[in-house]
Amino acid sequence: MNTIVDERAVLRHDADGTATLTLNRPRQFNALSEEMLEALAGEFDRLAEDASVRCVVIAAEGRAFCAGHDLKQMRANSDKAYYQALFARCGEVMQRIVNLPVPVIARVQGLATAAGCQLVATCDLAVAARSARFAVSGINVGLFCSTPAVALSRSVGRKRALEMLFTGEFINADQALEWGLVNRVADDTALDEALGELTSSICAKSAVALRIGKAMFQRQLQMPLSEAYDFAGEAMACNMLAEDVAEGIDAFIEKRHPHWRHR
Amino acid sequence: MNTIVDERAVLRHDADGTATLTLNRPRQFNALSEEMLEALAGEFDRLAEDASVRCVVIAAEGRAFCAGHDLKQMRANSDKAYYQALFARCGEVMQRIVNLPVPVIARVQGLATAAGCQLVATCDLAVAARSARFAVSGINVGLFCSTPAVALSRSVGRKRALEMLFTGEFINADQALEWGLVNRVADDTALDEALGELTSSICAKSAVALRIGKAMFQRQLQMPLSEAYDFAGEAMACNMLAEDVAEGIDAFIEKRHPHWRHR
Amino acid sequence: MNTIVDERAVLRHDADGTATLTLNRPRQFNALSEEMLEALAGEFDRLAEDASVRCVVIAAEGRAFCAGHDLKQMRANSDKAYYQALFARCGEVMQRIVNLPVPVIARVQGLATAAGCQLVATCDLAVAARSARFAVSGINVGLFCSTPAVALSRSVGRKRALEMLFTGEFINADQALEWGLVNRVADDTALDEALGELTSSICAKSAVALRIGKAMFQRQLQMPLSEAYDFAGEAMACNMLAEDVAEGIDAFIEKRHPHWRHR
Repeated sequence: MNTIVDERAVLRHDADGTATLTLNRPRQFNALSEEMLEALAGEFDRLAEDASVRCVVIAAEGRAFCAGHDLKQMRANSDKAYYQALFARCGEVMQRIVNLPVPVIARVQGLATAAGCQLVATCDLAVAARSARFAVSGINVGLFCSTPAVALSRSVGRKRALEMLFTGEFINADQALEWGLVNRVADDTALDEALGELTSSICAKSAVALRIGKAMFQRQLQMPLSEAYDFAGEAMACNMLAEDVAEGIDAFIEKRHPHWRHR
Repeated sequence: MNTIVDERAVLRHDADGTATLTLNRPRQFNALSEEMLEALAGEFDRLAEDASVRCVVIAAEGRAFCAGHDLKQMRANSDKAYYQALFARCGEVMQRIVNLPVPVIARVQGLATAAGCQLVATCDLAVAARSARFAVSGINVGLFCSTPAVALSRSVGRKRALEMLFTGEFINADQALEWGLVNRVADDTALDEALGELTSSICAKSAVALRIGKAMFQRQLQMPLSEAYDFAGEAMACNMLAEDVAEGIDAFIEKRHPHWRHR
Repeated sequence: MNTIVDERAVLRHDADGTATLTLNRPRQFNALSEEMLEALAGEFDRLAEDASVRCVVIAAEGRAFCAGHDLKQMRANSDKAYYQALFARCGEVMQRIVNLPVPVIARVQGLATAAGCQLVATCDLAVAARSARFAVSGINVGLFCSTPAVALSRSVGRKRALEMLFTGEFINADQALEWGLVNRVADDTALDEALGELTSSICAKSAVALRIGKAMFQRQLQMPLSEAYDFAGEAMACNMLAEDVAEGIDAFIEKRHPHWRHR
């Protein structure tokens, strides 16, 4: 019997409006090697142009969700320019998640450490198995998780982020839920069910509203209050002109399900 | 027997230094119609000039606290300029709450959805009945709650705000408390008692300190740390020159209640 | 029998890489008098230059951790220039904690009020005894805690900060933990054990990583996302060039403890 193993670093599977990207280097704990970062960047490029997608899931094969950078690969290089390029590339890939036009959900089934924890913090939403654990553990090898800190400090409180960064210790899924690093925790066997509730809910929404909303949300976060309101008001006025809103309000008034134009 | 029904969109009742504004369109679930927004703006203008007020409560008649914008009124209009003006007005009314010189407390007794949830997020404090529920549900009609997102994302964590915005689902009062969207949850029958504890506590404070403090707090939030400290230090030095501080410190040292000058 | 009482406002004790500063005015509840602020500023100056220190603890003698400013001293002065200088000095001392090159942990064993609560909020981490209590109580004497609000609003959510600032009421240690104002709560008799777990963990880390990390963390917090990633990526590339990282990664791969160069 032959088993065909897919050798690609990242797999993509589409179903019902949801594109699932699966990190596919389980033996390397799905480390964000150069190869993995390139594969993700490529997938994000394609997703950004794909009107059929309403929602993206980032999942992983094996016992680890993602163990962060590839330490062996990093150690095999020693010049600053290499490191600068590597961390710049990683930061750019993370920001593509923020800038993707649709919601991105992390499906965390095991360890999420260093840049793997950053990946969870960066996604718009996250669902975790109860056995999942999270750490920014670079400090244990003498490398403070500086780029993960950017995402983590914007996701959990400052003292919580600093405790994780200074100690390198793990938190469990329930702690991650309480701190707002993940949205939902499910028993390991019920993880896909919990994920499915989120993706089904999102995929039932108007694509134009999701896209206007996500872009608006991420940008207004960085603005002072008055500017944020001006920007959000303009986005909402544009949203009002979409056919979907007329249909949505009519359906609401008539107590029926809406039929979105762009499905 | 005649029952006289007060037809005004917003009622105001003053007692013991607290001005209570009551949204008074229960049959429309207190929707933020043009009329309601104008009524609120007018009340906030008057409150901003009223030295007798130490604390403002925003309450509501009926089963809903506030259901957000008036969908029928929005649907009856179709030009972008109308929507731009409407959302700009709403954002302006919300910012008047932030800029009012005294603390503003939401008294949430039922559903708070879309811009109604924004209203809760915008108030300085909020007290909720245990049966209250909160959602930014515009996404269900194809309209992402962009302006509510401005207030919500500054009140709860990012992933929590995004989950509410993308799914449109309700959270209950206990969840709102855990996330910091409200300060206190009380049994429905004990809501006014819980509110009264907050208003009594606030109304017992020096008016000049409350006014200096609220204005300082909202402005410093938007500053870098060093600038915020400069600004806050100057505000505190001004506060020290108020007669109330001399009286307050003397009373503290003499272990007696202070007698504020401006009651 | 003679008991020699140390008269200094702040004591310093070093052990195993941790420098402990103890506020030593228990009868004045360790108020941040001019004398206390000068003593702290002097200690922070020395610590900033001390390469032997990996971690700083701020502790206190007596029943109170710190009761904030010295009200009697403030009341004995009455010109605005004095107050401006006092609050500017206090803000500057707080920012020295943020800018110290190593982690700073508050050890809170009693009341932490007003600028004492600000001190806890300002430290990178905090461990509290279960009996500890926290308030920004200036409002009770007519003086809104404006400078404490700068630190508090960056440590707990907005509504939580405003409730504490407007009411002046205490929260207990468990509430402080839930809100992220402290990292750990321990029974009063186990406080030093809980603190020791944190300091041991931190002191076992590479000094260069801690120093690069802390400075990076505090600065990136104030940047927009893209700029923060550029800054953090550059910091991490510099960190990679440290000998400790080569040793740390080798030790990790070889499954042994790392031997840092700078102990």
